[in-house]
Amino acid sequence: MKHVIFGESHGNAIGVVIENPVPGIELDWEFINSEMARRAPGRSSLSTSRKESDNVEILSGVYEGKTTGTPLCAVIRNENTRSEDYSKLMNTPRPSHGDFSGSIKYAGNQDPRGGGHFSGRLTAPLVFAGALAKLILKQRKINISASISKVGGIADPSEKDIENVITEARVNNDSVGGAVRCSITGMPAGLGSPDFGRNIEGIISQYMFAVPAVKAISFGAGFGFADMHGSEANDPFIIRDGKIVTETNHSGGINGGITNGMPVEFEVAFRPTPSIGKAQKTVDISEMKETEIEIVGRHDPCIVPRAVVVVEASAALAACEILGV
Amino acid sequence: MKHVIFGESHGNAIGVVIENPVPGIELDWEFINSEMARRAPGRSSLSTSRKESDNVEILSGVYEGKTTGTPLCAVIRNENTRSEDYSKLMNTPRPSHGDFSGSIKYAGNQDPRGGGHFSGRLTAPLVFAGALAKLILKQRKINISASISKVGGIADPSEKDIENVITEARVNNDSVGGAVRCSITGMPAGLGSPDFGRNIEGIISQYMFAVPAVKAISFGAGFGFADMHGSEANDPFIIRDGKIVTETNHSGGINGGITNGMPVEFEVAFRPTPSIGKAQKTVDISEMKETEIEIVGRHDPCIVPRAVVVVEASAALAACEILGV
Amino acid sequence: MKHVIFGESHGNAIGVVIENPVPGIELDWEFINSEMARRAPGRSSLSTSRKESDNVEILSGVYEGKTTGTPLCAVIRNENTRSEDYSKLMNTPRPSHGDFSGSIKYAGNQDPRGGGHFSGRLTAPLVFAGALAKLILKQRKINISASISKVGGIADPSEKDIENVITEARVNNDSVGGAVRCSITGMPAGLGSPDFGRNIEGIISQYMFAVPAVKAISFGAGFGFADMHGSEANDPFIIRDGKIVTETNHSGGINGGITNGMPVEFEVAFRPTPSIGKAQKTVDISEMKETEIEIVGRHDPCIVPRAVVVVEASAALAACEILGV
Amino acid sequence: MKHVIFGESHGNAIGVVIENPVPGIELDWEFINSEMARRAPGRSSLSTSRKESDNVEILSGVYEGKTTGTPLCAVIRNENTRSEDYSKLMNTPRPSHGDFSGSIKYAGNQDPRGGGHFSGRLTAPLVFAGALAKLILKQRKINISASISKVGGIADPSEKDIENVITEARVNNDSVGGAVRCSITGMPAGLGSPDFGRNIEGIISQYMFAVPAVKAISFGAGFGFADMHGSEANDPFIIRDGKIVTETNHSGGINGGITNGMPVEFEVAFRPTPSIGKAQKTVDISEMKETEIEIVGRHDPCIVPRAVVVVEASAALAACEILGV
Repeated sequence: MKHVIFGESHGNAIGVVIENPVPGIELDWEFINSEMARRAPGRSSLSTSRKESDNVEILSGVYEGKTTGTPLCAVIRNENTRSEDYSKLMNTPRPSHGDFSGSIKYAGNQDPRGGGHFSGRLTAPLVFAGALAKLILKQRKINISASISKVGGIADPSEKDIENVITEARVNNDSVGGAVRCSITGMPAGLGSPDFGRNIEGIISQYMFAVPAVKAISFGAGFGFADMHGSEANDPFIIRDGKIVTETNHSGGINGGITNGMPVEFEVAFRPTPSIGKAQKTVDISEMKETEIEIVGRHDPCIVPRAVVVVEASAALAACEILGV
Repeated sequence: MKHVIFGESHGNAIGVVIENPVPGIELDWEFINSEMARRAPGRSSLSTSRKESDNVEILSGVYEGKTTGTPLCAVIRNENTRSEDYSKLMNTPRPSHGDFSGSIKYAGNQDPRGGGHFSGRLTAPLVFAGALAKLILKQRKINISASISKVGGIADPSEKDIENVITEARVNNDSVGGAVRCSITGMPAGLGSPDFGRNIEGIISQYMFAVPAVKAISFGAGFGFADMHGSEANDPFIIRDGKIVTETNHSGGINGGITNGMPVEFEVAFRPTPSIGKAQKTVDISEMKETEIEIVGRHDPCIVPRAVVVVEASAALAACEILGV
Repeated sequence: MKHVIFGESHGNAIGVVIENPVPGIELDWEFINSEMARRAPGRSSLSTSRKESDNVEILSGVYEGKTTGTPLCAVIRNENTRSEDYSKLMNTPRPSHGDFSGSIKYAGNQDPRGGGHFSGRLTAPLVFAGALAKLILKQRKINISASISKVGGIADPSEKDIENVITEARVNNDSVGGAVRCSITGMPAGLGSPDFGRNIEGIISQYMFAVPAVKAISFGAGFGFADMHGSEANDPFIIRDGKIVTETNHSGGINGGITNGMPVEFEVAFRPTPSIGKAQKTVDISEMKETEIEIVGRHDPCIVPRAVVVVEASAALAACEILGV
Repeated sequence: MKHVIFGESHGNAIGVVIENPVPGIELDWEFINSEMARRAPGRSSLSTSRKESDNVEILSGVYEGKTTGTPLCAVIRNENTRSEDYSKLMNTPRPSHGDFSGSIKYAGNQDPRGGGHFSGRLTAPLVFAGALAKLILKQRKINISASISKVGGIADPSEKDIENVITEARVNNDSVGGAVRCSITGMPAGLGSPDFGRNIEGIISQYMFAVPAVKAISFGAGFGFADMHGSEANDPFIIRDGKIVTETNHSGGINGGITNGMPVEFEVAFRPTPSIGKAQKTVDISEMKETEIEIVGRHDPCIVPRAVVVVEASAALAACEILGV
């Protein structure tokens, strides 16, 4: 199941084409909409005030409520766009945003309104695709769940911690980063390969780094392995309920690039939103001189709460690729 | 430039096919052999005592000392194999090794001698391929260098630290993990994409997770982003020597999945070698009962020192893919 | 430049996503619409009476009239659909149509209205993508042109021949096949490879067999080579205007899978439209008994005239892939 | 099951890496060697006098006589090379050979000895890979067989016809082309797709055009469709032995890019060997003046008899890809 995301934040529409979905999957719209709602902005004081209805329109690939197996195109129209917020940014690239690198790649032709194609808004069709993937995985008893593992330096934060950290960042015209951990349960053992391009860690990484702002990924004990001895790190094989499992899961369910039947566990780090209200140094490209920028407009001080479902969606798509469906 | 690694630790040979190398690259054997030597075992008391000559034979794709541009096959014959060390492991999978997951994937047909196809020995042809990639990159003024960032819990260790840590692990029949940081300088801005499958972080990850024992990767500040505010994390644009650069490089040279002209910087974590002499719990598969295993044979208590050049090799191959050569 | 076509004949819309177009290409709508018109039905008595406005809406990837370089989604809404024509076909697969093979692949979930995803109507977004590809190629002085080489058994037919053949087929509730030849001029020498997956003939074939009803392709002298001696077939090298060219072009511009600088020339055969009014034998699947079918509805007795621009579009997309743009 | 062919006609060795073969396939060497023998030169007066033992050495991916599932590398050492035959060809490209196009692609670095990487000799490892594919297909009751459909203009030639045509060509220092038809029986219905890159015709074409000298391919009635009416061309569905089949097979077992359960049938055309003894016009590149060339050395006047097994091998590899094994 391959997918292509398209769209710009303030263009006509954003969307996704899922090239070869499993046929016969019933689109459970209650579930899909609940997944979309988990990502939607404007739900609380913690996220951007932009309102989006995010109504998904199916253009193809669905007949009588079920996937046909032919390419499925889903689009979400853009509404409530305010392109005037961004007009003066064209010559002064926002630090750590895709403005500068993108202007070189696209030879200055990219859509500068909002984040354009770089916008976090493009995770909406990704969540749709992930919801479909979850419906496929559900039939195979595979479950995916993610949660916030860190926000603004606080590990395993409570709801109150998250609110405090984000409110403080907003008040200071700043933003904060965080991390999300994810678990895929029910994956059969024996999938993947030690070989380039086919190992489980590499496949999942491809999906995770396609999520805007993700800058790191670790499997199982991850960077913690650098502090461990083999005798601590190794996961002993034991028998439980007549099945061979491992006593611990430091390997994150993967040995030699291949699933071992334990939950596939990984964590991804999100950088703080680069768009902040504080004055920042940048360069006026047209005049080639240093200047300052203060970014106005609607921006999440922390995308991590909304990113949880995006990580799950990407994990679901990765799991489908790993399963070969 | 695509590549395929083949071989088993105790089979006839290991090797690599580089499918479509840049034509006309002179094979600088002094350089290639020095790269191979950086990875070779048996050089010091710190690594496995297995001696390998690692003589590379070119079967195709080279004419009069230069790459032809057609598929280049390089092979290294296996010598000094001791298959008897491993014979009883077949029914008792080594914890955290690919024995168990591999036996399911390959339906029990994998070569059980040594690590078989999972062996770290397969990094030898990878280093050869990386050396060729470095020769290509050198013409484009792109340089790659890696170093040990952590070993056995010690950050930025000295040579003495490394020796102590590894010696202690050997004495205890144990092993230790570590981490390697890598920098690619000279990459032009504007390469990559925010899109799935084409972003720089995703491409580099594919190459890194194909290195045995790598379990995590971070770009720039990586997991440190989870502790940062945007105002700290953002890299301000400034002008230096008439060029637009960033004052810091927390982004690791990548914004929006696209190179920004700064050094591409990342770090990878290596798990401790799973093969340790200490007794470990495992399962006798044929009898489906729990048992113990003590792994004998030649094993590195820490692969990190030898892995530095492997990370560089993989980074060089990734850089070639990113450049489209 | 990769593309994905989506849609069903009688669904909401058909369309295409062009994943990574060259940025900065101005969409010349006069040209694009003229290309769309070359394919559009209902223009003459020779083709299906279905009227389609085929208005292309751009959802993404275009800003201020130019490609941004990010994924471009173009959609065409379906109008004038008559799904009742097709309702009884579900259990009686139309001979030589995709009904039977598709029902197995898609486990009975495909959209049965019209040709569904198999419909020739999906060539409309293909022509749009091809028009964009031609605009890219034009900047590189590469030109593509195709023409009818055969229709209903008549080689190199005149307009009058074509009209007669098709009218006769319509009157008889039948259809006729034909062939289209295509030439790509201006392709630089040295592109392609003898290797699997990269040779010019293989790449062009992938694009041509994705056109519905194409069943054969030949390059240069094609099947005529089977009747020739090497001394006739070989293309002698000569010098013209200071350039090395070949005196003849039996090779169709390709030697060893690589362009030689001569026009890339090929011919494709189209099967007769399988949907004919005449009674045909088929099977009632639900009752597993043999029966007859008479297909009613709007069908071209010959798609070849409308297919010329589709072949050009596919050739343009293939040329972009070959050029690596 | 992906494969990569490597090697040059007069280099150290030729070979193939099969990246991810089905594990547990026993290498039936009697069968493999008989397949290799069908392709081997020097067996009769009809083919090149070059003797090759074509001993296959397995470097990896086989353990205790069976495929492990890890990359299998097989090499054939080159013997009996006569590089002096070819030395003066470097500046005078052989008409319709890959000399000229290749020298541009490879910037003059290709191996000029013999056909180098363009040599028909590289079909030897292809036949090995095909033999392995056939062993995999045999377990699935899929059978592949090809035969000469034309040689030197004679359709469905007898052994005597073939001998006469080829002998005449040799006597005249000339060569002749031909065609091979191939049938794959036992393929399940429902494989493939109408979509770009996944349709059966496109996949098989990729494999066939990777065979040196193939210049055309047709499925079922192929170019004959251009002379047919739909009422003749369509394959009526009927019931035989309780199964739905088609009465005729003009579609070559493929409808809408998807297998329909009937034999997959296609024909490929081979150009005459470009290397002929007769004097031919060419250009002296170093002096940029027109000249003549007389090719000496060992060349088949007709490769078609030896190509039959090569077509089968490529079809077997294609069938494995289509089956997803």
